[in-house]
Amino acid sequence: MGINKKILVIPGDGIGQEVTEWGKQALQAIAEKHGHTFSFDEALMGHVAIEATGDPLPQETLDKARASDAILFGAIGHAKYDNDPSLKVRPEQGLLKIRKELGLYANLRPIRLFDELLGASSIRPEILSGADILFFRELTGDVYFGEKKKAEDGSWASDLMSYQRYEVERIARKAFEAARARRRKLCSVDKANVLETSRLWRAVVQQIAAEYPDVETEHMFIDNAAMQLVKDPKRFDVVLTANLFGDILTDEASQIAGSMGMLASASVGDTTGFYEPIHGSAHDIAGKGIANPLASILSAALMLEISFGLKDEAEALVKAVDHTLKQGYRTLDIADKKIPNDFVLGTSAMGGKVI
Amino acid sequence: MGINKKILVIPGDGIGQEVTEWGKQALQAIAEKHGHTFSFDEALMGHVAIEATGDPLPQETLDKARASDAILFGAIGHAKYDNDPSLKVRPEQGLLKIRKELGLYANLRPIRLFDELLGASSIRPEILSGADILFFRELTGDVYFGEKKKAEDGSWASDLMSYQRYEVERIARKAFEAARARRRKLCSVDKANVLETSRLWRAVVQQIAAEYPDVETEHMFIDNAAMQLVKDPKRFDVVLTANLFGDILTDEASQIAGSMGMLASASVGDTTGFYEPIHGSAHDIAGKGIANPLASILSAALMLEISFGLKDEAEALVKAVDHTLKQGYRTLDIADKKIPNDFVLGTSAMGGKVI
Ligand SMILES: CC(C)[C@H](C(=O)O)[C@@H](O)C(=O)O
Ligand SMILES: CC(C)[C@H](C(=O)O)[C@@H](O)C(=O)O
Repeated sequence: MGINKKILVIPGDGIGQEVTEWGKQALQAIAEKHGHTFSFDEALMGHVAIEATGDPLPQETLDKARASDAILFGAIGHAKYDNDPSLKVRPEQGLLKIRKELGLYANLRPIRLFDELLGASSIRPEILSGADILFFRELTGDVYFGEKKKAEDGSWASDLMSYQRYEVERIARKAFEAARARRRKLCSVDKANVLETSRLWRAVVQQIAAEYPDVETEHMFIDNAAMQLVKDPKRFDVVLTANLFGDILTDEASQIAGSMGMLASASVGDTTGFYEPIHGSAHDIAGKGIANPLASILSAALMLEISFGLKDEAEALVKAVDHTLKQGYRTLDIADKKIPNDFVLGTSAMGGKVI
Repeated sequence: MGINKKILVIPGDGIGQEVTEWGKQALQAIAEKHGHTFSFDEALMGHVAIEATGDPLPQETLDKARASDAILFGAIGHAKYDNDPSLKVRPEQGLLKIRKELGLYANLRPIRLFDELLGASSIRPEILSGADILFFRELTGDVYFGEKKKAEDGSWASDLMSYQRYEVERIARKAFEAARARRRKLCSVDKANVLETSRLWRAVVQQIAAEYPDVETEHMFIDNAAMQLVKDPKRFDVVLTANLFGDILTDEASQIAGSMGMLASASVGDTTGFYEPIHGSAHDIAGKGIANPLASILSAALMLEISFGLKDEAEALVKAVDHTLKQGYRTLDIADKKIPNDFVLGTSAMGGKVI
C-alpha cells in the first residue's frame, strides 16, 4: 500500500536552485515506481527570500514547513554578504532560524565512499577504502545561537558559546542508539582541556555512555579529531559533536567521500525532518549547470528512510546513484583525469541518468 | 662574534619530558660550532608542576620566563584531567596563562613537507608535493580566554568568544608582512556567516589588507578551509586565523607534513619568544622512548631564526634534520612499511643522529 506525503522543497541560493530539482525528481520517480503519492510545494529562504520579501525566512515558508511531512532543502548564502560583514540581514539567518523553530537538534551526516570514487579523493585509496562514518552534529545550540554582541564603534564583538545539559543528553542518546545499530563505537569530540562548555559536554556524554556499556566510547579533542580524520578515517564509526565542531569536521570529512558534492544530511528533532546536501551555495559555479546533483538525490534517499520509513525505496535511490557511477558518469567535481570527456556530465544530464 | 643568550627549557608533561632534551642539545651543538654562548635554565609547567607545587604555572616559572631571552617548551596535558572534567586545577591552564602573561599573541606554525616523507602522509604525494603554508594563529584571545561560567548543579555551561579590534589588527599586520616576504598570498579564515566575532575579524582584515595591495587576500569560512586544506593544500601561502580555528586547522595540517611529530611552532608578541612542537603530551606513547624529537629540534631552529636572528644557524639545524631523513632514519610515526627495521629509531637515537 502506497503512502501519502507532503514535501516542501526549498531550493534556496546558488547551486541550490540547480540541484534541488533533481532531489525532487528522484522522489517523484520513486513515488511513481512504488505506488506512493508525494505532493510538492515550494518556498523561499536565504538570499532569494531577502530579495523577494526582505526576510531570509518569510513567515509563509515557516508555515509551509510546519504543515509538511518533510523538507528538501538546497543551499544558502551569497557573495554579497560574505564581502560585507556589516550587513544586518543575512541569508544564513534563515537557515539557522528554521533549524531552531523546527527543533532540528540532530544533524546526521553519513560519510561513505562509493567505490568508484576512490580515485577522486586527495587521500590515498588504501587509507579511505572501507571508511564509513556517521556524524551526529548538534544543530540548535552552541556558539551559533548564543547571544551576539558588538560595540557600536566596532572596537569589539562577541558570541556566547553555551550548552544546556538536556541539549547534550538528547543528541547523545540518538548517537548511542545509532552506534548500537552499527559497529558499536562512538567518538565524542570536544575541547574539554580548554572550554567549560566542552567539559559539560564530556561529563554528560560520559554519563549517557554508562547506559550503553555495549558501545565502546572514546573522547577526543577537536584538534586531534581534525587530524585523525585524515590520518585514519577508518578508526571512526559514530562521531558525536557540537554544532561548530561538527560544521568543521563534516566539511573536512567530505574529502573522505571524494567530494562535497556527494554528501547528504538529515536534520531531525521532534517534528518535521529537514534534508539537505552538506555543500553550500557555491556562488563560484552557480548558474553554470555543472553542480553535482547527487548530494540532493542522496538527501532525498535519507528522507525516504528516516522520515517515511521507506528503507527499500531509499536503497533503490542509492543503488541508482551507484549504478550511474559504475557506468562511468561523473560531474566535474568527482571526475579524475582518467574519465573520458563525454562521461563528464552537467547537473541535468547527471540527474537524468540517475532517474 | 658569538652572541650570549639565556634560554629557559620547560619540558612539561608526557613526551615533552623526552623530546625537549633534544631541542636543547641541538641548541648546545649550534652554540659550540658557531661560537655562541647559550646558558640554560629549567622550570616546571603543567601536570608535573601541579604535582610538585599545586600550581600549573608556578610563579618561579613565570619569573624565570620573564628573565630569559627565549623559551623552549615541550608539551602539556595528562589523561587524569581528560578523564575527569570536574577537576578545577588543570595542566593546560599553565600554558594558557604563560601565553597571556608573556603577550604571545602570534603563533606561527610553518607547514612544510620534507621530500623524504612524501610517503608518510595519508594524502596523495601529488597533492602534497610543494605545499608550503605558514599559519598565523592568534593565541591570546577568542573563546580560549573569554569568561567561563557554569551552573553549580551542572545544568549548563558557557564560554565567551570575543575579539577586540586591536587584537585582530596586530596579528593581521604580522601575517601580511610575512606574506610579503613569501608568495604574497594571504587567506583569512573565519565563520563570518554565523559569528559576530568573525564579522569583526573579517572587517578588520579587509581594512589591513588595503594597506597591502601587493598581497592577494582571500577570506574563507572555516568549514571550507578544513576541506580545502586536504583537497588542495598548495592553494595556501599564509593562513591567518583566530585561536580556536587555528588550533584545529594546524593539527589537521600536520598530515601535510607527514606527521605531527615534525611540526614546530613559534609564539611571539612583544617580549620573549616561546618555541614548542605542535604535538601534545601524547600520554599513550609517553615513557616508551619512541617519540619523535624532530619537532623539538625544529622548534629550536625557529628560536635561532626568530628570537636570535641567527638565520644560518637555523638553516644548519634544518639541514641536519633533512640529512638524517635522507640517510633513511625514521621514528615510528614517520616510518612507512618500506623502511628497514634497523632504520626505525627511538627518541634518543634519532636525536643523536641529528646532533
Ligand atoms: C550556511 C551555514 C550557516 C551552515 C552552518 O554553518 O551550519 C553550513 O555551513 C552547514 O554546515 O549547514
Ligand atoms: C594543550 C592545548 C591547550 C593547546 C591549545 O589548544 O592551544 C594545544 O592544543 C596547542 O595547539 O598548543
